[in-house]
Amino acid sequence: MNGQLHLISDGNFSKQHLNILMKIHSAIDYFHLREKKKSAGELIEIINVLEKGNIPLHKVIINDRIDISVMKKCAGVQLAYHSAPSTLVRKSFPEIMIGQSIHSLEEAKKANAKDIDFLVYGHIFESRSKVGKTPKGVYELKSIIDYISLPVIAIGGITPERAEAVINAGAEGIAVMSGVWQADDPVKAVRDYRKVLKEGIIER
Amino acid sequence: MNGQLHLISDGNFSKQHLNILMKIHSAIDYFHLREKKKSAGELIEIINVLEKGNIPLHKVIINDRIDISVMKKCAGVQLAYHSAPSTLVRKSFPEIMIGQSIHSLEEAKKANAKDIDFLVYGHIFESRSKVGKTPKGVYELKSIIDYISLPVIAIGGITPERAEAVINAGAEGIAVMSGVWQADDPVKAVRDYRKVLKEGIIER
Repeated sequence: MNGQLHLISDGNFSKQHLNILMKIHSAIDYFHLREKKKSAGELIEIINVLEKGNIPLHKVIINDRIDISVMKKCAGVQLAYHSAPSTLVRKSFPEIMIGQSIHSLEEAKKANAKDIDFLVYGHIFESRSKVGKTPKGVYELKSIIDYISLPVIAIGGITPERAEAVINAGAEGIAVMSGVWQADDPVKAVRDYRKVLKEGIIER
Repeated sequence: MNGQLHLISDGNFSKQHLNILMKIHSAIDYFHLREKKKSAGELIEIINVLEKGNIPLHKVIINDRIDISVMKKCAGVQLAYHSAPSTLVRKSFPEIMIGQSIHSLEEAKKANAKDIDFLVYGHIFESRSKVGKTPKGVYELKSIIDYISLPVIAIGGITPERAEAVINAGAEGIAVMSGVWQADDPVKAVRDYRKVLKEGIIER
């Protein structure tokens, strides 16, 4: 079984991010465009740039904005607690993939499996983007995975070394940010993640 | 000919706004939900509240978020310069009404009449929400109306007294904010606007 690798944008999408994506997109399952401060127009411009860079949009998941995902024919949408309710999204847009971000077993219990394709749960470990917040740890991850039938993607401070424990806990895959964007060698970082997820960098 | 009356939310939607809307919705053509700082979840909650208050959602236009308009079956969307391009919106969502906000003849020239149902242009007069910015005036409004075939809704500091000049310039209607929300008697204010727009407060 191959674990999924999701790469999440860090809110500062630039030409540098595009260059990295162009090198590694074949080795990741999904790229999440998560640029909360950008306008709809700016997000669409980024997607146009991805398109020109031959990043397959069927690997691109848009944070919160269902309309942008639909208009640009992306894979789907990642919903947070402040987003539209998944039931409403599924009803109006049955064709798109719906991910839901959760942070507790409580939220997992509320997640309606009928209307959601996968959960993103975290943060699991200490993470550069969640400094000072107590990480959930692998044990709580496992209790959520055991509770809910939906695939769970783990996020937060997951290095290639830590990925094994996460996959062993039953996660469908991992989501990373700084582990790739801030790596000295992002291509090697993705290769290292892929090795743990039991798959080399191959055109998929 | 009856001029349209659009009422725009002021970014601080509250129970008080709902109470006003419940009294005056039959006398306005459209209510624009324009609460830029609110999340998708919060916007949907407001729309649910409007629905419960029997405000007809076919009179509700959502600022920027096409997905919310589609999911809640509202009239359509109001696009700004930072929104998705109208051509892309029309292509993916041909069934919804599309308004475009513009601020100059230059922007009017760029507005693609095929993909837009109406323009909102302003601000025409000194306005509480645009303090310190030079108003466009009725002369420039008329030059835009003469240039473009699209219906133009004028916005900005339009009191019932000033509405006549705007309609005489050829505007399809007016959009108001503080003229209603901050009026001592919002019902009377709407009635006064309607009088100039040549229509009483009647169920439409």
